[in-house]
Amino acid sequence: MDVRTIQLKKTILENNDQDADLLREQLKGDGTYYMNIMSSPGSGKTTTLLGTIKGLQKLGATGEGCSPLKVGVMEADIDSDVDAKTIAEKAGVPSIQLHTGGMCHLDADMSRQGLREIGSKDLDLVFLENVGNLVCPAEFDTGAVKSAVILSIPEGDDKPLKYPLMFQEVDVVLVNKIDAAPAFDFDNERFKANLAACGCDVPVFFISAATGEGMDEWCKWLDAEVRGWLK
Amino acid sequence: MDVRTIQLKKTILENNDQDADLLREQLKGDGTYYMNIMSSPGSGKTTTLLGTIKGLQKLGATGEGCSPLKVGVMEADIDSDVDAKTIAEKAGVPSIQLHTGGMCHLDADMSRQGLREIGSKDLDLVFLENVGNLVCPAEFDTGAVKSAVILSIPEGDDKPLKYPLMFQEVDVVLVNKIDAAPAFDFDNERFKANLAACGCDVPVFFISAATGEGMDEWCKWLDAEVRGWLK
Repeated sequence: MDVRTIQLKKTILENNDQDADLLREQLKGDGTYYMNIMSSPGSGKTTTLLGTIKGLQKLGATGEGCSPLKVGVMEADIDSDVDAKTIAEKAGVPSIQLHTGGMCHLDADMSRQGLREIGSKDLDLVFLENVGNLVCPAEFDTGAVKSAVILSIPEGDDKPLKYPLMFQEVDVVLVNKIDAAPAFDFDNERFKANLAACGCDVPVFFISAATGEGMDEWCKWLDAEVRGWLK
Repeated sequence: MDVRTIQLKKTILENNDQDADLLREQLKGDGTYYMNIMSSPGSGKTTTLLGTIKGLQKLGATGEGCSPLKVGVMEADIDSDVDAKTIAEKAGVPSIQLHTGGMCHLDADMSRQGLREIGSKDLDLVFLENVGNLVCPAEFDTGAVKSAVILSIPEGDDKPLKYPLMFQEVDVVLVNKIDAAPAFDFDNERFKANLAACGCDVPVFFISAATGEGMDEWCKWLDAEVRGWLK
């Protein structure tokens, strides 16, 4: 399946924080919740998004008087369009690929370019799968309503100590690949202690996007979060 | 054990490439091989270094008329000194921690600051464990003689397509955590095809730093590489 690929233009605005606030206001007016998903390369962002979209659809179908959220996905990458293709093929929701032209992060204006192309006004929830990187994306406000970081079990429980800014900036933490936990030395309590040590005090969900374990709880949290904001 | 931590100063030189060439010349004169190790967060750089140092020591002890290489390790991180402590405690070789002060990469002058502090003139081989990041470190020549990237099995075999510059810039590729391969959908041949597709044609070693599998072959390659350059 062909997916649309957008070459992002470099931002010329000097004040990204101000621009991000402006974008959030616009999105509030449009009735669109924008979520920024960050992680290392290979932590399972795309698979987690697939499971999350499925989970949200299920909640919408069984909820009391709720229709499912209309979801779209923007896949940011230095290069390649493998992720946007996967989302389009497997989740059947609008998706576009954003190429950053070598840049290691997205900012608010780059988000705006993507949101315009995906037609965010007609969507309730747009995910940004940010460039795989635990350093730079944390430094730039994308204009998202909330940001999440996905850390996978094989990466180790010491990561909040090594990439503190990332864990300080996000609103929710997902620990993925818990099905692989027996093969790795990842201690959930030590991880939570490391989060606390770097000043991160947000909800933490332990999930396996591959097996579905823990996904219901995360999807319920997100569904309530989005509907609360859209009210 | 306490390890020395160096706060790196931001580089003011304009031409990093020129400075990197200069550093390589100096290192050649000093008889020191400098290797830059890059990877995502959590791919196993520190464990691989521990196994590599042990492997090189074993080769030196059994080789014909060879004494083991004198090795040192510079651990670069945004924050924390967990890696330098691990190296000092478990490998018993000189190690220092470099703090980048939020910067996502190292360049030649930052390398020089670290090499001076670790006393590289008295060492045959200095490893730099770069900041965990598949994007930015690939853009800066550190002055290293050779660069390596470690990709771990859980990250997936599509990474050369998504982070092509990294795989184009390195001189050797290590695929780590092969002991976890049964739990993940990583195809060695597809990975090699993806390397070829992005123009990466360098030696690839499949290893498990945790179990030791494949480490002998990699250590032999590196030992020969270093001794060849020091001649």
